[in-house]
Amino acid sequence: MRIVVLAGGIGGARFLRGLKRAAPDADITVIGNTGDDIHLFGLKVCPDLDTVMYTLGGGIDEERGWGRTDESFRLKEELAAYGVGPEWFGLGDRDFATHIVRTQMLAAGYPLSAVTEALCDRWQPGVRLIPMSDDRVETHVAVTLPAGDPAAGPTAGSGTGAGAGETPSGSATGSGVRKVIHFQEYWVRLRASVAAEAVVPVGAEQAKPAPGVLEAIAAADVILFPPSNPVVSIGTILAVPGIREAIAEAGVPVVGLSPIVGNAPVRGMADKVLAAVGVESTAWAVAEHYGSGLLDGWLVDTVDTSGVERIEEAGIRCRAVPLMMTDVDATARMAREALALAEEVRTV
Amino acid sequence: MRIVVLAGGIGGARFLRGLKRAAPDADITVIGNTGDDIHLFGLKVCPDLDTVMYTLGGGIDEERGWGRTDESFRLKEELAAYGVGPEWFGLGDRDFATHIVRTQMLAAGYPLSAVTEALCDRWQPGVRLIPMSDDRVETHVAVTLPAGDPAAGPTAGSGTGAGAGETPSGSATGSGVRKVIHFQEYWVRLRASVAAEAVVPVGAEQAKPAPGVLEAIAAADVILFPPSNPVVSIGTILAVPGIREAIAEAGVPVVGLSPIVGNAPVRGMADKVLAAVGVESTAWAVAEHYGSGLLDGWLVDTVDTSGVERIEEAGIRCRAVPLMMTDVDATARMAREALALAEEVRTV
Repeated sequence: MRIVVLAGGIGGARFLRGLKRAAPDADITVIGNTGDDIHLFGLKVCPDLDTVMYTLGGGIDEERGWGRTDESFRLKEELAAYGVGPEWFGLGDRDFATHIVRTQMLAAGYPLSAVTEALCDRWQPGVRLIPMSDDRVETHVAVTLPAGDPAAGPTAGSGTGAGAGETPSGSATGSGVRKVIHFQEYWVRLRASVAAEAVVPVGAEQAKPAPGVLEAIAAADVILFPPSNPVVSIGTILAVPGIREAIAEAGVPVVGLSPIVGNAPVRGMADKVLAAVGVESTAWAVAEHYGSGLLDGWLVDTVDTSGVERIEEAGIRCRAVPLMMTDVDATARMAREALALAEEVRTV
Repeated sequence: MRIVVLAGGIGGARFLRGLKRAAPDADITVIGNTGDDIHLFGLKVCPDLDTVMYTLGGGIDEERGWGRTDESFRLKEELAAYGVGPEWFGLGDRDFATHIVRTQMLAAGYPLSAVTEALCDRWQPGVRLIPMSDDRVETHVAVTLPAGDPAAGPTAGSGTGAGAGETPSGSATGSGVRKVIHFQEYWVRLRASVAAEAVVPVGAEQAKPAPGVLEAIAAADVILFPPSNPVVSIGTILAVPGIREAIAEAGVPVVGLSPIVGNAPVRGMADKVLAAVGVESTAWAVAEHYGSGLLDGWLVDTVDTSGVERIEEAGIRCRAVPLMMTDVDATARMAREALALAEEVRTV
């Protein structure tokens, strides 16, 4: 069985670990989100790709969910001693090696998909991991920063005479400074503590799917959306022209798992970015957001049974099953439910 | 008093520590060798500049003489796990930060001299450290590698039909493969275990002295050559057009300290590269190699008293004093002797 999975970071990676256990003989292709990629210290960092690679390859820090196990942060401390930041992004000494190898290969002319394949040669994740695109896509978030925020810059009327003129991407308002910031700055530095007014996958419109992406979708028997962030993970992948269309036209079951359980994200702060695209943080609202044109089946948690009927009315087959990825066994059960739902909608 | 010092790595750095103690109020400008710079993992590494900076800034590993104190090598181990080398060059986790900051600043358009100044903002070495040039100069060494050496490549007649044709920089001989390799590969990987047939500071002829170098020489009261390598450290600095001439024309005492004691290098393998330029490994031969057109005074060790007369006959004032840098006090005494000799030749 050929399974294609669209994946973000931690949620996608953990789901994939369960899927591998649930379907050990399946041929799994993962289309990874690269919208959260960021250039730090002159290096190309691909947090979601690495989280998938490390998690499936046995190198992840299980507790944090990102970065390498048995990690240290001495290089980063030294960079800070030079006054070079950002300090809010956690790059460990072991993790740095991945970014150095990636950056060197990109500089040598290899596309990100080839680089990812080379990195996976070491990690042997047991899936084929392809970035959604070899082209640069970076998710940016429009926010209003409180005037005291270090990134807010000088505000109008602060007496320097500078004001908004010195913050070309922002404009001062009564209550703060409107700015467009990198998703990682929103997610990691600010921990989504302010409202996301807009989420824009910069470059997505011009991006092409990486080699193998459309082919894998066309050849798939099942397509799965793990409980990844519907906006900044799966939404970004779907924003690459051609991918959404290929999934809709693949003619195979497309089944998703709700990242929202009991009206709150299972992990992370998905509600903040859902609000930016006008979607309620409920299991049914996310299903409707994907829509019946894309989704054939949707799994909600057993606490969300009340939404099942509404989702089915929207033309999406829905089942309520436990959706907490508490361990690999529980996650494998979720994956089996998703595959079972896929067979159910296939035979309709 | 304004002192200009031409410095390589460990020997130069340790001498400078003694000089600072001997002349605490002096205004010291160090012209650093960059011929041993190397690009590793996409990063610009300047071993000699860093050794000076770390040694004078209190960050050096005292035992090794290079790299950072309290160092770990986890990033390098990870690079090796990716199959990315070289493994023979020791870059530590803390040290990496320096190369990352440097590479980022160079990529942003700053010249190496400005980058070095910025790095020294942190280390406060107590001297002004200027690279000899902002232009790329890399010392290469012609060697004959034994056929079994991993860098020797396929040899003629090995049955692959490839032979020397696949090693454009080398040619097969009966006993090995002639190749031109980076100085660091010669020094660190091979530990100068084969003869250096030629030493070439590639790029030196086209290089310009970095901003401040000629100005510092012209304004100097004394110019010192520490017991650094006369070929690949001081020799490389002197190979940058304009520097040798500026020193010769400065009209101030130029005093050197022999790196050869008892016909052997005090440290390192200077004899190997001296042989490549046809200079014997003796204190007097090195003095004659610099020549009276450049040197006014020369300190030899007390075990080399027999050479003093010969050096003085060559027109260079010579004194025999203890030249082992066993600790900072001993080194400070050497520096005082050098400054005393400078005053002696100044009043001639």
